[in-house]
Amino acid sequence: MSIAVLYGGSRPNGNTETLTKIAIQGLDVEEIYLKEYTIEPITDKRHAEEGFQEINDDYNLIIDRILPHDILIFSTPIYWYSMTGTMKNFVDRWSQTLRDSNYPNFKKQMSQKSAYVIAVGGDNPYTKGLPMILQFQHIFDFIGTRFEGYIIGEGNKPGDIIQDKKALSAAEQLRKELQ
Amino acid sequence: MSIAVLYGGSRPNGNTETLTKIAIQGLDVEEIYLKEYTIEPITDKRHAEEGFQEINDDYNLIIDRILPHDILIFSTPIYWYSMTGTMKNFVDRWSQTLRDSNYPNFKKQMSQKSAYVIAVGGDNPYTKGLPMILQFQHIFDFIGTRFEGYIIGEGNKPGDIIQDKKALSAAEQLRKELQ
Amino acid sequence: MSIAVLYGGSRPNGNTETLTKIAIQGLDVEEIYLKEYTIEPITDKRHAEEGFQEINDDYNLIIDRILPHDILIFSTPIYWYSMTGTMKNFVDRWSQTLRDSNYPNFKKQMSQKSAYVIAVGGDNPYTKGLPMILQFQHIFDFIGTRFEGYIIGEGNKPGDIIQDKKALSAAEQLRKELQ
Amino acid sequence: MSIAVLYGGSRPNGNTETLTKIAIQGLDVEEIYLKEYTIEPITDKRHAEEGFQEINDDYNLIIDRILPHDILIFSTPIYWYSMTGTMKNFVDRWSQTLRDSNYPNFKKQMSQKSAYVIAVGGDNPYTKGLPMILQFQHIFDFIGTRFEGYIIGEGNKPGDIIQDKKALSAAEQLRKELQ
Repeated sequence: MSIAVLYGGSRPNGNTETLTKIAIQGLDVEEIYLKEYTIEPITDKRHAEEGFQEINDDYNLIIDRILPHDILIFSTPIYWYSMTGTMKNFVDRWSQTLRDSNYPNFKKQMSQKSAYVIAVGGDNPYTKGLPMILQFQHIFDFIGTRFEGYIIGEGNKPGDIIQDKKALSAAEQLRKELQ
Repeated sequence: MSIAVLYGGSRPNGNTETLTKIAIQGLDVEEIYLKEYTIEPITDKRHAEEGFQEINDDYNLIIDRILPHDILIFSTPIYWYSMTGTMKNFVDRWSQTLRDSNYPNFKKQMSQKSAYVIAVGGDNPYTKGLPMILQFQHIFDFIGTRFEGYIIGEGNKPGDIIQDKKALSAAEQLRKELQ
Repeated sequence: MSIAVLYGGSRPNGNTETLTKIAIQGLDVEEIYLKEYTIEPITDKRHAEEGFQEINDDYNLIIDRILPHDILIFSTPIYWYSMTGTMKNFVDRWSQTLRDSNYPNFKKQMSQKSAYVIAVGGDNPYTKGLPMILQFQHIFDFIGTRFEGYIIGEGNKPGDIIQDKKALSAAEQLRKELQ
Repeated sequence: MSIAVLYGGSRPNGNTETLTKIAIQGLDVEEIYLKEYTIEPITDKRHAEEGFQEINDDYNLIIDRILPHDILIFSTPIYWYSMTGTMKNFVDRWSQTLRDSNYPNFKKQMSQKSAYVIAVGGDNPYTKGLPMILQFQHIFDFIGTRFEGYIIGEGNKPGDIIQDKKALSAAEQLRKELQ
């Protein structure tokens, strides 16, 4: 099983990244930092006569990097009770890829993958992060990806996550599952 | 009571905009189309020594437009079961404004406002849109804004919303409330 | 289209009942007050060798009353952020009916029905009532019933609901839909 | 710290009970099986002139058993996407105790406690059980109890829970936390 991680955070070595690294330690993983790419927001042309225009940014590069993998890990700090805007813009663009003749099998390919979410937040994430988990469930249901599990962690300042024994233990458990 | 609408959609005259126009018809409203502005994703510098850097984009212009108003209407199509990435990037940046010495009273000002959400989606939004409503509740709780209500509508193709009698009726009801 | 209402409340002429009566005014409806029946909690015997035992209470009488109808309205005050315990005990027992040879077509019959939820609560029901709506969605998904819509109202003391113009307007809109 | 467990299930040695026993193994815990008690549904008399009537059942016995403890564990199988009707009837009755002159400090006492939820379900509980977690959060917020954490497990047939390594690991982690 081949794994790609999508990091949605903007801070190097943030709590979410730290927690994710524990889950993937020792595994061969393709790590993708969304902040290193330019991702334009989608312009919805689903119903426009001319259809979607090609966008001159890095979005397709990321798609090309994730498609070969069996397992996708969405690793995002919880910003304002959901994934980061950067990760959201990435997901929003799937609406375009679903109609892109260069990716005729996008939905089918996504439907053969499994996904995990790893997310760390500072304001009671174990309950206030749940609407985000429900959003991810709907996202994966729509695209056909199997939502295998999620880990929520609590942290605010850099390094906080090390205090969240529950999250660390869940990350170690996930690593066993991914091996 | 003075009203500002933040439109998060990318399609001119989309279903969400149409529904929102019914709710504000005849009222004096400042309308802000986020897609007309450049909004960079936040770079989280809350814990960096140097603090947040000034970002050279249009974000503060939008903040300056909404701050004078008593009521904010967040009008967003439901993209992938939440607000658009564009609107999310706008909200994410509040973390910076909360620490921006040019906006020393940002939280206090936001806490004196009321907010409404108007959202239209194509995939069972009356239930699949609820995680987004819960997310908005957490957002408004954090910033102190009073969440006065929301309208969910169903629509996919342009014009669909006109068939959603329930949403239209709720929009007319909201207009009475806003008058 | 034939309609049955299941009232889950324990107070005569409560806010939820009042709101429901507006939605069904002038329609021919079978009204079932759960509090007038004895409904034992389920004893889970799904995996017991002997199987479920017949329970000597009124539960099956209620099932017999709802099965002939096309539309079911679940009308419940929000007690502690969900349906009343009485209504929950009624729903829990469906697990038994699903295996009851006296009701061999229970799931099929339920899957041919539509359902609405009408619920009134006193503590910010428009957001704090949403987990209950999500729960009902899962319930209806499992049993195959089409979840057509819901109305949430706000009220605490008897008569409060009359002040909730939004809920009243939604109830009137639902009545048009039911006609 | 003194601990009481409230078991909401109806099946002896069910998956939820098994998972809970792992979390409390070796600890001194008061275990309360709700099914062994008669708990009448509440009759809402909050606004009745005569007020609540004394109910001749076992409810107060349970209240008397939990009040001395610092930590409450709500252990419930997920029936129809929430706690069992039996447990719900128990919680519903808190509305009466809140007005019962025999328990003048009920809310204050509850607000000095911490709570955990342990729940096992058979139909994708890791996401479909989340509305129940959100309900519990609202319940604990209202009564003032600190919601310290929850464990969700997956299981259907007796013994299934032993296969859910993630839940077992979380239960062991919780035991360390409770020690």
